[in-house]
Amino acid sequence: MLSVPTGGTMMAIEEKSVLAVVDWGTSHLRIWAVGSSGAVLAERKSNEGMSSTARDRFEGVLESHLDALAIAENVPVIMCGMVGSRQGWAEAGYIPIPTGLDQLGANAVRVPHSKRDIRILPGLSKNDPVAPDVMRGEETQLLGLFAAIGEHKGAKTTVCMPGTHSKWVSMSDGTVGDCVSFMTGDMFAALSGHSVLSHSVGTATFDAHSADFLQGVEASLASPSDILARLFSIRPAGLLQGLSPEAASARLSGYLIGQEIAGAKARLAVGQSVELVGGGVLGALYSAALQVASIDSRVHDGDTLVLEGAKKAAAMIWNF
Amino acid sequence: MLSVPTGGTMMAIEEKSVLAVVDWGTSHLRIWAVGSSGAVLAERKSNEGMSSTARDRFEGVLESHLDALAIAENVPVIMCGMVGSRQGWAEAGYIPIPTGLDQLGANAVRVPHSKRDIRILPGLSKNDPVAPDVMRGEETQLLGLFAAIGEHKGAKTTVCMPGTHSKWVSMSDGTVGDCVSFMTGDMFAALSGHSVLSHSVGTATFDAHSADFLQGVEASLASPSDILARLFSIRPAGLLQGLSPEAASARLSGYLIGQEIAGAKARLAVGQSVELVGGGVLGALYSAALQVASIDSRVHDGDTLVLEGAKKAAAMIWNF
Repeated sequence: MLSVPTGGTMMAIEEKSVLAVVDWGTSHLRIWAVGSSGAVLAERKSNEGMSSTARDRFEGVLESHLDALAIAENVPVIMCGMVGSRQGWAEAGYIPIPTGLDQLGANAVRVPHSKRDIRILPGLSKNDPVAPDVMRGEETQLLGLFAAIGEHKGAKTTVCMPGTHSKWVSMSDGTVGDCVSFMTGDMFAALSGHSVLSHSVGTATFDAHSADFLQGVEASLASPSDILARLFSIRPAGLLQGLSPEAASARLSGYLIGQEIAGAKARLAVGQSVELVGGGVLGALYSAALQVASIDSRVHDGDTLVLEGAKKAAAMIWNF
Repeated sequence: MLSVPTGGTMMAIEEKSVLAVVDWGTSHLRIWAVGSSGAVLAERKSNEGMSSTARDRFEGVLESHLDALAIAENVPVIMCGMVGSRQGWAEAGYIPIPTGLDQLGANAVRVPHSKRDIRILPGLSKNDPVAPDVMRGEETQLLGLFAAIGEHKGAKTTVCMPGTHSKWVSMSDGTVGDCVSFMTGDMFAALSGHSVLSHSVGTATFDAHSADFLQGVEASLASPSDILARLFSIRPAGLLQGLSPEAASARLSGYLIGQEIAGAKARLAVGQSVELVGGGVLGALYSAALQVASIDSRVHDGDTLVLEGAKKAAAMIWNF
């Protein structure tokens, strides 16, 4: 998906691009061409994620997209996401928390044997013996968020980053203090595809106003110890009560997101509001679910934060 | 697997069998030839479960096993398990709880168009709008358990039946009052095979003395709202701390079984002990986990209970 016209305009982009930002995750690849003013000149999206790209194809895939954006060989490239994992293109390690987000640029890893200057941002890790955690990609969003909200000195920010492995991060003065991941999205996929619930849950969508979704959130908040029973009950509700596949999906999602929030809420100060990273359907679901839990939230677009965070890190590396 | 000698002995069995008991579940088939004294004369096990047997093959599969046990055509057959589901051989419905277990025989369904007298026992259902539940197969074990322990008048028995969908049943004077299913085993399989944990969890076994298992149980009992975070932590424990696949499996199992018991314990009276149905590895794991939760349990062999329960129901149907 190329969001700018081709032909003459592309030549104009080539003249102005000073940076390419690449968010390369497990299932997707996203590239922005950034001009000297900091504005996005063009962007591309692709399904060529890490999991579907062979190791020896990383450079070829990247170059084909850079070519299509007419980005010259001397333009630096900054990347984040699973591309920096052990199974990725070049391992970019983890910075242990607590750490200031200004450490991301300094700890970026240069991709070896490349004709371009390509740097991959590191992830963050929490080396706690009981509750270890890792993130890769979200740290770049956090840097973008920090730039966007401009934390007050001494203020504590709680960030909720929904997804396959939802992350709840606490941050103060640009320093990441804690991170807890919940396998909410991963579990939704595993249960709807590979458990008895696969007979009940459909591919039909539902929205954040769905009563089944909202009541599901409420039920898990009220008695989180019952989650394994609550999840099973979706099956007999189909067998005995004719629960529709759409309602079953809404309940499954509500039960799991409610369970996540029950766990996260126990860590929040009373009245603490949340910066919610993620637009679209997931952002709307979490926003509604947080409301059920009486937690105020402010939504931020995740793609924008990746882009802004990567630009910040690039500025540290190359002194833009 | 035929546990008796062939040849002359088989002829002796043919003369004595008065009943065939069949436990036909999703993944297995088990048959016992029962003599007039009530003793088991021979038995067979097979992997020809419902899920791997075509609809038009049910009769053929059953007859081949009955033939191998030399069970005559005039010997009645009693069956329980998924064979009575809508997708099974003949639908045997559900009896709504509360119900006396003496209703099982009266509600058995005769398989139509068969040369034999074959009856399938019904399941039990709980038509609760918020927490519906179903069981199929376990009701027969409950009947066997009731016969084995001989409940005192007015006593309340709590039964824990571990498995793909673990069931906790409360029973009084042979009447099933409540049932709650937890999708513990199903979730273990879905997460170890189809989530990020598939990279961490191995096929290596562990036992009930494993510290990872026992600490896992304890952690979920202590903070059940955190289960989605606790499950995810298995992955970074592998990445950052070198957690072995064996230890990862033990933790996953401990977290899930602990979560189930946290939910079930909230329904138990203080000091209430539990009848635990299931021998082997699973019985040992649950027994150890219940001990962590300070719940006393008494283990019963599940196969024995199916057999005894089916014999009880057969006695009601055919007046043995």
